[in-house]
Amino acid sequence: MRDLIERIRDFNRERDWEQFHSPKNLAMCLAAEVGELIEQFQWLTEQQSHDLGPARRAAVEEELGDVTLCLLNLADKLGVDVLDAAGRKLEKNKAKYPVHKAKGRADKYTELG
Amino acid sequence: MRDLIERIRDFNRERDWEQFHSPKNLAMCLAAEVGELIEQFQWLTEQQSHDLGPARRAAVEEELGDVTLCLLNLADKLGVDVLDAAGRKLEKNKAKYPVHKAKGRADKYTELG
Amino acid sequence: MRDLIERIRDFNRERDWEQFHSPKNLAMCLAAEVGELIEQFQWLTEQQSHDLGPARRAAVEEELGDVTLCLLNLADKLGVDVLDAAGRKLEKNKAKYPVHKAKGRADKYTELG
Amino acid sequence: MRDLIERIRDFNRERDWEQFHSPKNLAMCLAAEVGELIEQFQWLTEQQSHDLGPARRAAVEEELGDVTLCLLNLADKLGVDVLDAAGRKLEKNKAKYPVHKAKGRADKYTELG
Repeated sequence: MRDLIERIRDFNRERDWEQFHSPKNLAMCLAAEVGELIEQFQWLTEQQSHDLGPARRAAVEEELGDVTLCLLNLADKLGVDVLDAAGRKLEKNKAKYPVHKAKGRADKYTELG
Repeated sequence: MRDLIERIRDFNRERDWEQFHSPKNLAMCLAAEVGELIEQFQWLTEQQSHDLGPARRAAVEEELGDVTLCLLNLADKLGVDVLDAAGRKLEKNKAKYPVHKAKGRADKYTELG
Repeated sequence: MRDLIERIRDFNRERDWEQFHSPKNLAMCLAAEVGELIEQFQWLTEQQSHDLGPARRAAVEEELGDVTLCLLNLADKLGVDVLDAAGRKLEKNKAKYPVHKAKGRADKYTELG
Repeated sequence: MRDLIERIRDFNRERDWEQFHSPKNLAMCLAAEVGELIEQFQWLTEQQSHDLGPARRAAVEEELGDVTLCLLNLADKLGVDVLDAAGRKLEKNKAKYPVHKAKGRADKYTELG
């Protein structure tokens, strides 16, 4: 991940694009890329979303790549380590959704989500 | 990252939540979490988004954590390595936005984006 | 709709919120509200999304209200009539997805979407 | 608006697309289209977002058309009148953000939003 972040920095620096990369704008970039990912899944059934054909799968992988680039770019700009942030949030979620209450219940999950 | 993915799997397994985690649904989870991140930035100026106060910063870190959890969960379900996917996309972007054409130009970037 | 737009303008003017309402920011507001709508649907099956219980239905209606407020606010700021814009887009879609090619095909729809 | 909703229904019926149009899927359609709208604004300054050039403006109008089509399609499927829902939400917001507390304050707005 460190290596990839370095490559993203180089990519931006070479193109002089850092001037556009306020956290606000990068959050928008992330939302735009997630919109493209959603577009890939919007008319699929849940079952179909498990079994993507090769063309759809390639498109989804590309969108996942875009989403990851925006996310790392944004987090790097803010000095946030996404793995740390995710690990901390996972611990919070363990407390918020205790196994005995949340087991098998999507409603609980959504309501609090 | 491997370790975090394992922890996400355990978290889901303990709560019997895998039944809800079709890639389609996890893509929606990602969109919902990115919506919460956008909410943090929506009324800030670009400058303010660089200099977050402590309360806002903590909220943003938490949302980045949520986004990362959804993204890793989705990618894991599809068997995609997000760092690989991002690295490949970065190479594609280098070809798509050659330095001599893209330098300092957000219009080029957006138009092709 | 004219009446509602007038009420939105009054609401903003009374709170002196027009200063925050650049089209860029209002587009973010729309994305944040759509994220909340997506949250309501993320763990539902498609069938469940047709048959919402009363609590979920009330929450969805409220989110649809928020999305509409942001959309009208944004369009008003840009001087766009959303019904005109939608009508024109519908005509374009008729040409883009001719009945004999698009009938019953979600793949066509997504691919071109 | 009634007329436009009728035209959307006809459009869907002719293409036999109603089978794909669960509220869940239409919420995803809305998120995907809002992603495209966000893409138009992501690298613009707030000032630039007020003064769109003709090409950008045409693109934004088209995306606003798409967003409106998805929103009306979704609301129609659920039997919700978006203007009613928005009007009710506006009244709620008046109570939630009283003028004397909310005046000129984006922080209040975001925090509660």
